[in-house]
Amino acid sequence: MSTNLVEMGQKAVKAKYELQGLTTAVKNNALIVCANALIESTDEILLANQQDIDKGISAGMHPGLVDRLRLTKDRIEAMAEGLRQIVELEDPIGQIMDTFERPNGLKISQIRVPLGVIGIIYESRPNVTADAFGLCFKTGNAVILKGGSDAISSNICIANVLRKALFSQGITADAIQMIADTDRAVTNEFMKLNQYVDVLIPRGGAGLIKSVVENSTIPVIETGTGNCHIYVDEFADLNLAVQIIFNAKTQRIGVCNACESLVVHEKILQDFLPKLETALKEKQVQLRADTKAFSCLEDVKEATEEDFGTEYLDYILSIKTVANIQEAIEHINTYNTKHSEAIITSSKENADLFLQCVDAACVYVNASTRFTDGFEFGFGAEIGISTQKLHARGPMGLRELTSYKYTIVGEGQIRK
Amino acid sequence: MSTNLVEMGQKAVKAKYELQGLTTAVKNNALIVCANALIESTDEILLANQQDIDKGISAGMHPGLVDRLRLTKDRIEAMAEGLRQIVELEDPIGQIMDTFERPNGLKISQIRVPLGVIGIIYESRPNVTADAFGLCFKTGNAVILKGGSDAISSNICIANVLRKALFSQGITADAIQMIADTDRAVTNEFMKLNQYVDVLIPRGGAGLIKSVVENSTIPVIETGTGNCHIYVDEFADLNLAVQIIFNAKTQRIGVCNACESLVVHEKILQDFLPKLETALKEKQVQLRADTKAFSCLEDVKEATEEDFGTEYLDYILSIKTVANIQEAIEHINTYNTKHSEAIITSSKENADLFLQCVDAACVYVNASTRFTDGFEFGFGAEIGISTQKLHARGPMGLRELTSYKYTIVGEGQIRK
Repeated sequence: MSTNLVEMGQKAVKAKYELQGLTTAVKNNALIVCANALIESTDEILLANQQDIDKGISAGMHPGLVDRLRLTKDRIEAMAEGLRQIVELEDPIGQIMDTFERPNGLKISQIRVPLGVIGIIYESRPNVTADAFGLCFKTGNAVILKGGSDAISSNICIANVLRKALFSQGITADAIQMIADTDRAVTNEFMKLNQYVDVLIPRGGAGLIKSVVENSTIPVIETGTGNCHIYVDEFADLNLAVQIIFNAKTQRIGVCNACESLVVHEKILQDFLPKLETALKEKQVQLRADTKAFSCLEDVKEATEEDFGTEYLDYILSIKTVANIQEAIEHINTYNTKHSEAIITSSKENADLFLQCVDAACVYVNASTRFTDGFEFGFGAEIGISTQKLHARGPMGLRELTSYKYTIVGEGQIRK
Repeated sequence: MSTNLVEMGQKAVKAKYELQGLTTAVKNNALIVCANALIESTDEILLANQQDIDKGISAGMHPGLVDRLRLTKDRIEAMAEGLRQIVELEDPIGQIMDTFERPNGLKISQIRVPLGVIGIIYESRPNVTADAFGLCFKTGNAVILKGGSDAISSNICIANVLRKALFSQGITADAIQMIADTDRAVTNEFMKLNQYVDVLIPRGGAGLIKSVVENSTIPVIETGTGNCHIYVDEFADLNLAVQIIFNAKTQRIGVCNACESLVVHEKILQDFLPKLETALKEKQVQLRADTKAFSCLEDVKEATEEDFGTEYLDYILSIKTVANIQEAIEHINTYNTKHSEAIITSSKENADLFLQCVDAACVYVNASTRFTDGFEFGFGAEIGISTQKLHARGPMGLRELTSYKYTIVGEGQIRK
């Protein structure tokens, strides 16, 4: 274990004890100071960002990725605005979740507390640095960030701006620490820091998440991959189905709550698929269908077994035909990633069956899967979308960045 | 990966879909049939148990361990009674935790659902087999058990009795599966079964738990180890303190909520320690004290740094002197295992500071740490005591064996 990481862990633990005692007012004030500091440091951040961009371009980075990496005055303003929005959210820390008295007179309360030290490994744009810090700080958690190597100069610069802003308010700068070493071996060591880090949240592609799940000894919240299905029932309003699928497939293709696969009741195949094909032509969506569906479409490829398990993140849609709703549910439970699944139906009975039997964080009736999102759910924030069942499931806001403790107040009670 | 384990995983997944749909009445009835089956199979279970005992004795097993392993007619009756008690508990599955409507008309509900497939690795007495099954079954979870090799014949026999009882009720026997192979390599493979198993709960000593945390790719709920402290404040009622410490240290020594270490304010050292020593003599508790406390005691050893980090599970108590409550809190947060910590004080201010700043699942004022227990908390059951912060903290009852899903009902909403 590199000394540096252990030191960072120890500093984070020290910071968490300071942060857990801060009042909401102090935290909110610090967030506003941080937001202002980002704006005031615009030139400095843009300069650091230019280094990342130059490095990316000379390494032949795809222009789309260069654009994701690029910060502008507007994007820095948006980062600051993100912190200001977190100020407006209710502070969950200290909330009394439950309170009861036992027959022996012990008064037991369940109190919401910070998780402690949160580790976040991410590949995304540099704005995640400020965003993740804001959510962790508001919930009294210390955060250790490990960003992608592409954005390392930007990330370090943003973290330092935030650290200085906290320090200026008499708050520990170690509320946010950035791992500067982008070596993969360091990431692997970070994942073993369970003596200091309470939770690890990976944010990124399937490869990153798999690596964290397999290598971390720190408890992980698995986020992200979404092989999301829409099932068009025999009792569906077909025009509604076309609109919802068009939205879920094409409104934004590279996101985890986009629709990747269609399941269609065999009775409506011939009425429905041509309508859908016409609509999806506008976005040139490639269709990959099983044998039955294939025959109802004009421009289509045959779907393989692999297609049904693939999160395309692209203008591609797989199509599976089923004889009844039970088959639809079984197909979805076999191939899904427990993220978001929808049924289009006007049958209350089938809707209820689908809601109960489909195993996913978010199960929809007659709506687009694209609503699986902390903001769309009204949480006012989002650190990620959990696809595991432990701790948090679905969109995670501030509340999902907390734990609880029991306080037990007695008058000398002993156990018989 | 051994084929056998993969098959068990697949069967468990199939079972979880069946179990999630069972009504409370069906589950309760099945639990009663299972309880009766245990009683009716007493001879068969005792015969299997005798094999384990004979094997243990001929391997030179400690008589205390042989006793833990031994089943009797009364102990089998107690196992059955445990299942009957679970019938009486409220079924958390299907409970609506939250429900709200978004401005766009989407109706979102958060519904309590089973975790799915739970893996339990345990070293304990064979009664855990029936107990863990009962709690998992009531919450609609399929369970895969991996018991210790000492009790393997008893465990297999009990699991088979329960499987037959379920089958007789038309319920999948795969609600409970026992891994028959006691090879350590199989345990390691089991910990990698994250494709099928949603949560892994280890129950046993520190070595077992460490091994699971380090090797499992399945999300783990860490349970168990408790290096629990009692801090005697300068404003403590000293007689009350003696009674509580006597109880927390000696009422049962081998349990995770027993007191292992004392922290004493320096102002009361001379008044308090002799009183305590006199009381603890009755149970021949060995005292290991730091330099200041050492001088106030008669029969005492010097405490080493290692002592403060040790969960003795024995008639031994370490003693640390502090100059103020802040030092006490810092000492506890450094050495504790986040389990159960207590302050003895009549100062409301110090009690509140301790409750807020000590990082542990259960923080006590003027009561014995021995109350950290699902039954003592009134949960009516306990699968273990979590010492991690993710998902569940402290005593885990039925509710802690559940997850949730969001159901979202719309009328054609699409994302703008």
